[in-house]
Amino acid sequence: MAQRVLTPQAEDFPRWYQDVVAKAEMAENGPVRGTMVIRPYGYAIWERMQREVDDRIKAAGAQNVAFPMFIPESYLQREAEHVEGFSPELAVVTHAGGKELEEPVVVRPTSETVFGEFMAKWIQGYRDLPLLLNQWANVVRWELRPRVFLRTTEFLWQEGHTAHASEADATAYALRILHDVYRDFMVEVLGIPVLVGRKTARERFAGAINTLTCEAIVGDGKALQMGTSHELGQNFSRAFDILYLDADGQQQHAWTTSWGVSTRMVGGLIMSHGDDDGLRIPPRLAPTQVVVVVVRDDAGCLERGGALVDELRHAGVRVVLDDKVSVSFGRRATDWELKGVPVRVEVGPRDLADGVVTLVRRDLASDNPSRKQTVGLDQVAAAVATALEDGQASLRRQAEEHLAARLVDVEDLDSAVEAAATGAARIPWALVGDAGEDRLAAEGVTVRCIQRPDGTVPASADEPDLVAVAARAY
Amino acid sequence: MAQRVLTPQAEDFPRWYQDVVAKAEMAENGPVRGTMVIRPYGYAIWERMQREVDDRIKAAGAQNVAFPMFIPESYLQREAEHVEGFSPELAVVTHAGGKELEEPVVVRPTSETVFGEFMAKWIQGYRDLPLLLNQWANVVRWELRPRVFLRTTEFLWQEGHTAHASEADATAYALRILHDVYRDFMVEVLGIPVLVGRKTARERFAGAINTLTCEAIVGDGKALQMGTSHELGQNFSRAFDILYLDADGQQQHAWTTSWGVSTRMVGGLIMSHGDDDGLRIPPRLAPTQVVVVVVRDDAGCLERGGALVDELRHAGVRVVLDDKVSVSFGRRATDWELKGVPVRVEVGPRDLADGVVTLVRRDLASDNPSRKQTVGLDQVAAAVATALEDGQASLRRQAEEHLAARLVDVEDLDSAVEAAATGAARIPWALVGDAGEDRLAAEGVTVRCIQRPDGTVPASADEPDLVAVAARAY
Ligand SMILES: [Zn+2]
Ligand SMILES: [Zn+2]
Repeated sequence: MAQRVLTPQAEDFPRWYQDVVAKAEMAENGPVRGTMVIRPYGYAIWERMQREVDDRIKAAGAQNVAFPMFIPESYLQREAEHVEGFSPELAVVTHAGGKELEEPVVVRPTSETVFGEFMAKWIQGYRDLPLLLNQWANVVRWELRPRVFLRTTEFLWQEGHTAHASEADATAYALRILHDVYRDFMVEVLGIPVLVGRKTARERFAGAINTLTCEAIVGDGKALQMGTSHELGQNFSRAFDILYLDADGQQQHAWTTSWGVSTRMVGGLIMSHGDDDGLRIPPRLAPTQVVVVVVRDDAGCLERGGALVDELRHAGVRVVLDDKVSVSFGRRATDWELKGVPVRVEVGPRDLADGVVTLVRRDLASDNPSRKQTVGLDQVAAAVATALEDGQASLRRQAEEHLAARLVDVEDLDSAVEAAATGAARIPWALVGDAGEDRLAAEGVTVRCIQRPDGTVPASADEPDLVAVAARAY
Repeated sequence: MAQRVLTPQAEDFPRWYQDVVAKAEMAENGPVRGTMVIRPYGYAIWERMQREVDDRIKAAGAQNVAFPMFIPESYLQREAEHVEGFSPELAVVTHAGGKELEEPVVVRPTSETVFGEFMAKWIQGYRDLPLLLNQWANVVRWELRPRVFLRTTEFLWQEGHTAHASEADATAYALRILHDVYRDFMVEVLGIPVLVGRKTARERFAGAINTLTCEAIVGDGKALQMGTSHELGQNFSRAFDILYLDADGQQQHAWTTSWGVSTRMVGGLIMSHGDDDGLRIPPRLAPTQVVVVVVRDDAGCLERGGALVDELRHAGVRVVLDDKVSVSFGRRATDWELKGVPVRVEVGPRDLADGVVTLVRRDLASDNPSRKQTVGLDQVAAAVATALEDGQASLRRQAEEHLAARLVDVEDLDSAVEAAATGAARIPWALVGDAGEDRLAAEGVTVRCIQRPDGTVPASADEPDLVAVAARAY
């Protein structure tokens, strides 16, 4: 684009992020520090994420519920390790209904404890297992250094909580969520080649015996945790007395899991695919896949634009018409680039005289000759379908290339720190260990996950030949 | 059904309501007084409501957003009349992040004020209008006499907030929401013949110049407000400086509306269609439209049941298989009646030997000979389709008959009070007025809405021949 509307990524990536969130009208800061207002375009993207993730959660057999956001303070004291992790972040309601409350209530930082309390009531015998629950909700963790979508005092998320009759079942389910829900969604829909693996003991969720994670390496080479799936062993079932009668009539503690993704994924999407012209939304996710832009109110452009929108909509494309001809074409084109709509169909009088329109793909760089094509009027639907398919594959390929360039194999901790200045390091886990993590932490670098050499998830941190992915992180 | 699992409605309607909410596993009380835990079945029903209402809201042109749930106390003081209506119900966060907050924040009782603040920023000129926004969110109003779904301290709802360039546009939009979103959904999907009309000045939303409402007359003859749509005139735009430059370059205050429906509709659904055997969910709404019940693990019942589920699912029916043959058939049948699944297909060995299954319609009374039909195995999909269509129409017809029986035309206030003991009274509005409302209020009766004689919504309370609907209300 000719106009410079955003700080270039290479100049100041965090500033670019702020700019694009504001200029693409994704979100703004809310009136209470650390909160955000998600605007229509940002929310439409989140709704599409929710729908795709929710479909996968339901396919994995979990059912949605809604727990209250207020939790008695006493609940949080039942799981000491858990509450320690959260207490400095809690928001506390002390007054309600015009009086001081006898027992203050906490606004949920997660619903682990209240799920635990009710699962204990709902589970009697082994036939009640597995109990697979999920909720879409807002949660609050007071943030000192908030950043829109990435780290906000209130955020939107889903939290799954399940109980199983055996450790093996719980392990398998936590892994199933990681693979079939999170990774599948992130790779296939978001086009983000996330790294999967186990967290180290120090990076684990408080109270978990194992935390699995999906990590993205975003535009500036930093890691972003996109979603986690935790095995909680019997820790929570002991704290909350989640017991069941097994087939032999014996009382047993259930094995539980929890797992979540949040509006943070919107930040991951922006930072994974965005460029100096703005957002780039993968077609499978995009709330608006195609915009038909009427260049001028001339030579039947308006009518033709309307007819194309109609045709595309009937073909199942999520399409909008831009007929705001009172605003200059250039400015509108810049805005659609900013919003990252995958395909733009420009309907102008000169093209129409030749029986064609111009199709522009957002996924390709402005100097790529394939970016703009001239398409005959009767070929638009077919060309759009191809462009959407190619655009999805191309964004993913670009993200894979970015990952390959930024993920460096190293053989010692010094080199890992060095690599983490611009990307991520893969280093033999045997060379890191607890002391290595201290060493990395001193440089602001953390182990994002431990993987097998082929990138799959190890069954334990003690498998031979594991590699650690180390990076700076959001 | 043979077993009595619920308190009969005629014996104690509120107790019946409590029983059915618990036994059908819709919801439970939460740990903090007045809150609720919505269980999977209750939440699935709410999700279906959300989807249907959301589709209609989008068709009416509004876009979804997400505002923070924390509102600075100072915001609420900008609209004095508004805050007066809410202050005794507010929950206040005074401590967060481990310290006392400088300014306490309120948990939203509605987001009117924060929408107002941001709409003022987003609206510049007349081209930005109408601005049509909606959000799905949780809100908190501290309740002294909570009742699950009907009146809870935290509830889930949607709140629409719109700004328009003229009073006529705002009036038309508030009415459009009432008719095309709320009434259409309630009548066509929920099968509840809601009464529509204007609220009287005293029953109006604080700060509104006009409140439109949908009122159901539920099983015990009481009224339940199912949804409201408010014209706010320029009251909110003055309080929040929602200004726009008109086509002549003059600053003008916008005209705003707000409108909402909530999880209270779930309560309305239960009380409108439920009977002594449990819930009855209209097929168009039902998350599970059909349950295929395997009577015994014998003579290929399991296989045939599975095949029928497959066939129905491919036909687009929301169907589940009940193959829990270790639980008695009678108990399972009772449970499905309780849950109000519209159609039950019973697959038993004796029927199968004759090449048939038994189809049971939940909408018809147990002494109705059409309730159970024997259906040939190759006719199941067709019979189910018919049963779902007939079931939808029949629940609505039953609710219409109930309304006709409970809505009595009267000609004086004494008769109105009398009619309100068991239902609702239609009384000429000219006979009520302010003094009449006082009189009714002394007897626990309120004017639910003012209508034209033909049941349509009047343009003002001063039209001739208007009628008031008076009733006791939830
Ligand atoms: Zn225990
Ligand atoms: Zn003003």
